[in-house]
Amino acid sequence: MKITILTICPEQFGDFMKTPLIARSMASGLLDLQVVDIRDFAPGSFRDVDDSPYGGGAGMILRCQPVLDALESVRTPESRVLIMAPVGEKYTQKDAHRLATEQHLIIICGHYEGMDARIYPHADEIISIGDYILTGGEIPAMVIADSVMRLAPGSMKEESTAEESFENGLLEYPQYTRPADYKGQKVPEVLLSGDHEAIRRWRKEQSVLLTRKHRPDIM
Amino acid sequence: MKITILTICPEQFGDFMKTPLIARSMASGLLDLQVVDIRDFAPGSFRDVDDSPYGGGAGMILRCQPVLDALESVRTPESRVLIMAPVGEKYTQKDAHRLATEQHLIIICGHYEGMDARIYPHADEIISIGDYILTGGEIPAMVIADSVMRLAPGSMKEESTAEESFENGLLEYPQYTRPADYKGQKVPEVLLSGDHEAIRRWRKEQSVLLTRKHRPDIM
Repeated sequence: MKITILTICPEQFGDFMKTPLIARSMASGLLDLQVVDIRDFAPGSFRDVDDSPYGGGAGMILRCQPVLDALESVRTPESRVLIMAPVGEKYTQKDAHRLATEQHLIIICGHYEGMDARIYPHADEIISIGDYILTGGEIPAMVIADSVMRLAPGSMKEESTAEESFENGLLEYPQYTRPADYKGQKVPEVLLSGDHEAIRRWRKEQSVLLTRKHRPDIM
Repeated sequence: MKITILTICPEQFGDFMKTPLIARSMASGLLDLQVVDIRDFAPGSFRDVDDSPYGGGAGMILRCQPVLDALESVRTPESRVLIMAPVGEKYTQKDAHRLATEQHLIIICGHYEGMDARIYPHADEIISIGDYILTGGEIPAMVIADSVMRLAPGSMKEESTAEESFENGLLEYPQYTRPADYKGQKVPEVLLSGDHEAIRRWRKEQSVLLTRKHRPDIM
């Protein structure tokens, strides 16, 4: 799978490319991650990528030309183009599964006060990671790349993801590890019983209870 | 404001601390951002921070002792302790405003397959940035720090945030910048009119239309 990130802040992805999942996926050839600097497509010695909004208002707006020229330089018929923006469709685990089957994702990171509205029709989808405002689309792009790469075939043990929150319409059950008694807080007896059927039942019950309490909407 | 991030991957925050908003906030003394390595609180030469889950299952679970000892080393009566986890309450711009008034946020990043359930009661709140699964709580911690610091008094021009998506129950209106005609795609006439009242009305209408189409739930 290939992921191309278009950004005016390519330096924000240095550490990200060294995170275990991404580094391992790149080393094994599973992932080809490319970070493209939109500024390289802005002409002139100032390399301006933004300008004031028509009609007045605060902040600076990303200009069509550098963004769309950067996009055209990497787009192929196999590319799926995503723009990260608060007006987008809410991203969920279902989308992560869907995008994990794509050959090439191009992720355009918005920035400053937004981007020229004429850029949006060039994307296949506009995605929001949640109802909050960030300074740029760089952290959201990391959310997409990380959540998608975890699900890419060969990337993680299948067993490991099947029981996670949202995968079966339930939140994950509580987990415990040693010691069995931590300063008086004990691990539920059933988990120490060795009775696999009882453990499976307890975990299912706990998942249902947790989901009913915190997230009845996903059930 | 002070933000302390507890993580087993402190190296993931190097680039983040250099992002314009965070670097500027730190340089001006507005933000004291501290990244604490949970591994420093794990005894022994292997510095194990995780162990297998009781009752079986895939993956490794963060242990109580290193996480809680790290927490106690930084917690004060002024601290508000957040755990980033998919089972948490959904984070929104309202929470960003609320947290921006705190003196000290401590953000605990979950990792691997989760953390020992006995850690959760030590937090003031469990927060989820969305219905998707990431390899760790590090990217979510960046979401919190970035969204909160944008709103901290003195951090950004007030005008700049007041018209953004979610701030008034509406998505932001479309923005445009030069040129007025980009390869045949034109900027709406009204924005070039200089008629401030007409521009204000058009933007409001567009916000309502966009919100009704994409996010009727937030209206």
